[in-house]
Amino acid sequence: MTDIAKRFANNPIISPNDINPSIDGFDVIGVLNPGAFRFNNQIGLLIRVAEAPPVLDGFVQAPVIDRDNTVKTLKFPDDPQFLTLKESRLFSYNGKTYLTSISHLRLAWSEDEIHFKVEKEPLLMGNGQYESFGIEDCRVINIDDIFYLTYTAVSEKGFCVGLISTKDWYNFERWGIIFPPPNKNTAIFPCKIDDYYYALHRPSGVVIGGNYIWIAKSIDLKHWGNYECIAVTRPGKWDSCGIGPGAPPIKTEYGWLEIYHGTDKNNRYCLGALLLDLKNPFKVVARSEEPIMEPTMSYETEGFFGNVVFTNGCVYDGDILTVYYGASDEYICGAKFSIKEILTESLKVPTTNHR
Amino acid sequence: MTDIAKRFANNPIISPNDINPSIDGFDVIGVLNPGAFRFNNQIGLLIRVAEAPPVLDGFVQAPVIDRDNTVKTLKFPDDPQFLTLKESRLFSYNGKTYLTSISHLRLAWSEDEIHFKVEKEPLLMGNGQYESFGIEDCRVINIDDIFYLTYTAVSEKGFCVGLISTKDWYNFERWGIIFPPPNKNTAIFPCKIDDYYYALHRPSGVVIGGNYIWIAKSIDLKHWGNYECIAVTRPGKWDSCGIGPGAPPIKTEYGWLEIYHGTDKNNRYCLGALLLDLKNPFKVVARSEEPIMEPTMSYETEGFFGNVVFTNGCVYDGDILTVYYGASDEYICGAKFSIKEILTESLKVPTTNHR
Repeated sequence: MTDIAKRFANNPIISPNDINPSIDGFDVIGVLNPGAFRFNNQIGLLIRVAEAPPVLDGFVQAPVIDRDNTVKTLKFPDDPQFLTLKESRLFSYNGKTYLTSISHLRLAWSEDEIHFKVEKEPLLMGNGQYESFGIEDCRVINIDDIFYLTYTAVSEKGFCVGLISTKDWYNFERWGIIFPPPNKNTAIFPCKIDDYYYALHRPSGVVIGGNYIWIAKSIDLKHWGNYECIAVTRPGKWDSCGIGPGAPPIKTEYGWLEIYHGTDKNNRYCLGALLLDLKNPFKVVARSEEPIMEPTMSYETEGFFGNVVFTNGCVYDGDILTVYYGASDEYICGAKFSIKEILTESLKVPTTNHR
Repeated sequence: MTDIAKRFANNPIISPNDINPSIDGFDVIGVLNPGAFRFNNQIGLLIRVAEAPPVLDGFVQAPVIDRDNTVKTLKFPDDPQFLTLKESRLFSYNGKTYLTSISHLRLAWSEDEIHFKVEKEPLLMGNGQYESFGIEDCRVINIDDIFYLTYTAVSEKGFCVGLISTKDWYNFERWGIIFPPPNKNTAIFPCKIDDYYYALHRPSGVVIGGNYIWIAKSIDLKHWGNYECIAVTRPGKWDSCGIGPGAPPIKTEYGWLEIYHGTDKNNRYCLGALLLDLKNPFKVVARSEEPIMEPTMSYETEGFFGNVVFTNGCVYDGDILTVYYGASDEYICGAKFSIKEILTESLKVPTTNHR
């Protein structure tokens, strides 16, 4: 058993039933993949809420954000001559690809790290031509009292990475697209290293290459360069088909600890760990051979997209790492880890207090 | 007839037969897609030379650059259980993709813009993990006496964009990867606009999006941000399947003139024109409805990859634009255009001297 997660007893901690839809007549079909942060003595989760119009017999539907920033639903006749279903979330009609649901970001707050109260209104909706199919999977970091939000912007132009900042969670500044398509899963390091910011991200391969973890360097968080690939998929293993960064890296005395996700040929999503050199995060010091968490509970194996545990947000206090994660692309759950246990048991790092 | 190119009478101006291979026993299978620049009263072309090992019955072969920066040839048995031929240049073996040839960059010089002498040795070879499958299709710009070279770096990590600079064409500085995969066709603007550098580039779509022309902004040429998509494919037209930037944009009084390439569903490559706002190059002022150049001559329709005209290098003198281009992915050719004719006839811009 390589799964060393101590799951919350009250999982899932947020379910679609806990959320009111933001669009009249739509259903919340998933609440997933939260960014996590501390603010005003609370834990904030920036959750992804996926909504879809009710099923309409004989049609497939695509909710899109219009130029006036309202959601309208495109309806296409269910005609196999023009329609190709690509997966549960995607279809292509007459050669153009659409999503069957649209996601926005919403806040949930907790005073005990376990019980969350979800706000009634969306915090951030897709805005503009790169977000007409919604915004998804936001990482949050806090540098010098400013929160930086990296998220997946989805539109007919592709999926790419946007950056937004806020000091107070009321006023927001948009920094534009920081990584061009196809890119997602961007996790900025929570502090500078020798005058540079760093970010992990996940471009996708076309014909050649794959879904690998890359890193980049920046002087100002807005302009990025020095792209390098730090980890690739491993044939025959749990992370053989695709990998991507999870939450922002955690600074430990042994290196930057990054919880990442990996998929196998059955599209099963597990979590693993990477350790990057403290001074030179281009260098991978250790990588877990086995997952540190696998989908095993019913809420992780059954749901909108079963067999998925996926994280992009965590908080920590001393040795205790609290990972918030999406389960089956439908629920938000929580689990605790011992950072030392990840280092010693999963990453085989000889820590000084190693028993 | 929308093709307004005045082709050189002596096309092709460089053929594979004119080039000695750089690797013992290899054949030069194509010489194509040159960057173009002026230096010491000559026209320099930075040509792409594609080389392959001779056919070996019963095997497919992939030349790759090893860690010691020498080319070695991987040999795979021609076994349909493991082998998938993807196109004339690509195959996949046991799930991994390889190229059947490897490209380097070599210089050719001319005093009359028409007759070129090709150097005997490569100028730049693939170097390091992002270039193990070679380097291709280099654009050259000249800013403040420094030449900047943007090229496609190809490896098992994917294809992405590298930047190299030189003052003298003897000493080179490597700036690393400036756009992550999958990206190519990067054309930097030849001067700053209001304190920022700009570049056109071509990320590829995965599942969603497509092969569209994007732009980015930089403060230092090394770090890039503010990504925007400025042009997409046009259904039913000659550029319905993919588009990409050509040579670096040309400053005219009516805007930045960009010669770009477009492909249709038959993989036929033509050239078209875009005009971008002088002060705000995110804004497209005009786009040619029809190609300004189409593959029509035998050297453009027949060859390694027929029906291709593709440019990434040009020079100009007053109204005369000399475009160097790859034909059929096998030859280098030249053609002259009148800039005013492109503006008035192809882009329908009302120029002041319009007859």
